[in-house]
Amino acid sequence: MAKNVLVLPGDGIGPEIVTEARKVLDLVNERFDLGLEVNEALVGGAAIDATGVPLPDETLAAARKADAILLGAVGGPKWDTNPDFAIRPEKGLLGIRSQLELFGNLRPAILYPQLAHASTLKPEVVSGLDILIVRELTGGIYFGQPRGIREKEGGIREGFNTYVYDENEIRRIGRVAFEAARARNKRLCSVDKANVLEVTVLWREIMEELSKEYPDVELSHMYVDNAAMQLVRAPKQFDVVVTGNMFGDILSDAAAMLTGSIGMLPSASLDENGKGMYEPCHGSAPDIAGQGKANPLATILSVAMMLRYSLNAGEAAEQIEAAVSKVLDQNLRTPDIMSEGMREVSTTEMGDAVVAAL
Amino acid sequence: MAKNVLVLPGDGIGPEIVTEARKVLDLVNERFDLGLEVNEALVGGAAIDATGVPLPDETLAAARKADAILLGAVGGPKWDTNPDFAIRPEKGLLGIRSQLELFGNLRPAILYPQLAHASTLKPEVVSGLDILIVRELTGGIYFGQPRGIREKEGGIREGFNTYVYDENEIRRIGRVAFEAARARNKRLCSVDKANVLEVTVLWREIMEELSKEYPDVELSHMYVDNAAMQLVRAPKQFDVVVTGNMFGDILSDAAAMLTGSIGMLPSASLDENGKGMYEPCHGSAPDIAGQGKANPLATILSVAMMLRYSLNAGEAAEQIEAAVSKVLDQNLRTPDIMSEGMREVSTTEMGDAVVAAL
Ligand SMILES: CC(C)[C@H](C(=O)O)[C@@H](O)C(=O)O
Ligand SMILES: CC(C)[C@H](C(=O)O)[C@@H](O)C(=O)O
Repeated sequence: MAKNVLVLPGDGIGPEIVTEARKVLDLVNERFDLGLEVNEALVGGAAIDATGVPLPDETLAAARKADAILLGAVGGPKWDTNPDFAIRPEKGLLGIRSQLELFGNLRPAILYPQLAHASTLKPEVVSGLDILIVRELTGGIYFGQPRGIREKEGGIREGFNTYVYDENEIRRIGRVAFEAARARNKRLCSVDKANVLEVTVLWREIMEELSKEYPDVELSHMYVDNAAMQLVRAPKQFDVVVTGNMFGDILSDAAAMLTGSIGMLPSASLDENGKGMYEPCHGSAPDIAGQGKANPLATILSVAMMLRYSLNAGEAAEQIEAAVSKVLDQNLRTPDIMSEGMREVSTTEMGDAVVAAL
Repeated sequence: MAKNVLVLPGDGIGPEIVTEARKVLDLVNERFDLGLEVNEALVGGAAIDATGVPLPDETLAAARKADAILLGAVGGPKWDTNPDFAIRPEKGLLGIRSQLELFGNLRPAILYPQLAHASTLKPEVVSGLDILIVRELTGGIYFGQPRGIREKEGGIREGFNTYVYDENEIRRIGRVAFEAARARNKRLCSVDKANVLEVTVLWREIMEELSKEYPDVELSHMYVDNAAMQLVRAPKQFDVVVTGNMFGDILSDAAAMLTGSIGMLPSASLDENGKGMYEPCHGSAPDIAGQGKANPLATILSVAMMLRYSLNAGEAAEQIEAAVSKVLDQNLRTPDIMSEGMREVSTTEMGDAVVAAL
């Protein structure tokens, strides 16, 4: 049966990088006879402009039907001032994550040897860096109720959000993380703030409980403030890190930046059955949109992740990853990873180079 | 009238570093005829052991009476497993902050030229680093109600905390930050997650409103995930950063670690009238407690901050800061900042060296 891939270009540099990623996807689709049917739909600011809402019903329906989703990026200043909080590009992204229960967010932070110099950290601190942040993506304070802005007595306004996790939510993301650690170096660090927040006391308790099922994985706990420090001090101490939605948002961005090349990092957001949405770790970068400066490699590597995790096409994934490595060896660099002696190329040239390497 | 300083040694390395800081305080007290009366009290794990609670009534009463408080550090594994969440060392610290309304937390991250090599970041990225994180300290998710762990239908437990700020709380920390920026390089970056959390939409709105009163200060906004990235990518872009309690906890630790010498960084927690608690940015480091390995300089520099902000003794503060710089120039280093060619000294030796330099 034909498998279905939904492509959501989104905003800013989204359309440009997705165009390059589609070239790569189309090529392996043919070469490996994957029989993938690829469709596009609107999300984020692009959807607001066209339909008035960030997640149109047709997009959600298409996302439900798809076997895998490839997203560019969403958001931009154009829509940031919308007073109606529901009509923001981010709500499109959050809506898909939540409606499709894509709770398992895998964010690798890998330092490519060819880009070792790009990090702001000293080479000995980051060389060989390869950590995986597992972030819970459909719960926590992102989605907790009640939330809003209300008036107290005296007409004073207060804003409020709720950070909430139940046992089952913690358990299912815990399993994703323990399984990931088992497949890697068997060390899992759970990050919480259990000295202050009750919700993370429960988090820690469930992680401990789960660890009995994974005696081969070494579980440790770290407070989030310390984790932020340790990522800067000695990032290679980590193998897999698991944490909630908000802490994961912060730590995964810090971890990505350690590599100095966030334009290289893909991510996966998976549901219980391995269906997933794949997207680059970076944002929509409206400041460079439309200028051919964006690095398409994170999106191309997201295609590889998609092939591996959701489309059962591991060999195609490996070929793509090898092709990316090859273009780096050819000294081709988009502006974000440019350095002396390398050849600066545009978004399209980089995409074409990967296709050629394939 | 005699001014009153309360010293709270706390746990782990707390007593050791506070002993050295007291030597310095006693010396300037005499030299400048400050007439300070210095008392000690129990807090944290030490208080739990002696009295059963982390913040005994006498300690709270003494803290209220004091003009300034000097804290070592609290916490340690010994008390971490206490099932009663109220009987944890951290609750002593949080209790003082909250009861005394010490809402304005100033956390400088400064790179000492003598310790430039200690950072894990490349010298060009951090040399000359001097940023100030202003963290709201008595509100937000740390203190929000409701909170706890409860059973839902079906006996499933869920943990929950509330992230809440009202206009007044935001306004008063905003003023602290704008004033600080005005006294420095006039740039203030407010960090929030206004694309997801309503409470920070209000935060951003109030910061914008306040900025009209400070036309000489340039206000910008940044999402917390991006802020974590930018601290790693280009920390010198910041002058003053203002943010809520939880984000401030994470970002200030990351910022401190950029300097590579968190053992050097003091902090102040101030109320509306300039009364404050002063403590090192680092924790209680139970692993090295009692071994003479702790760096007392952050606590000694906290004494300087205390003299300046709460005790109107700016000249004494300057002398202490100069003395610290001098011992660094003398190549004296505790183990945490030790490097080739320097002379490793113990906690006591370092304290004595500062006294001698004074
Ligand atoms: C765009 C935003 C809502 C999103 C998030 O906070 O989850 C982004 O920062 C991310 O990490 O994917
Ligand atoms: C000990 C802990 C409760 C405290 C906090 O989270 O505020 C500490 O990390 C700090 O930053 O002072």
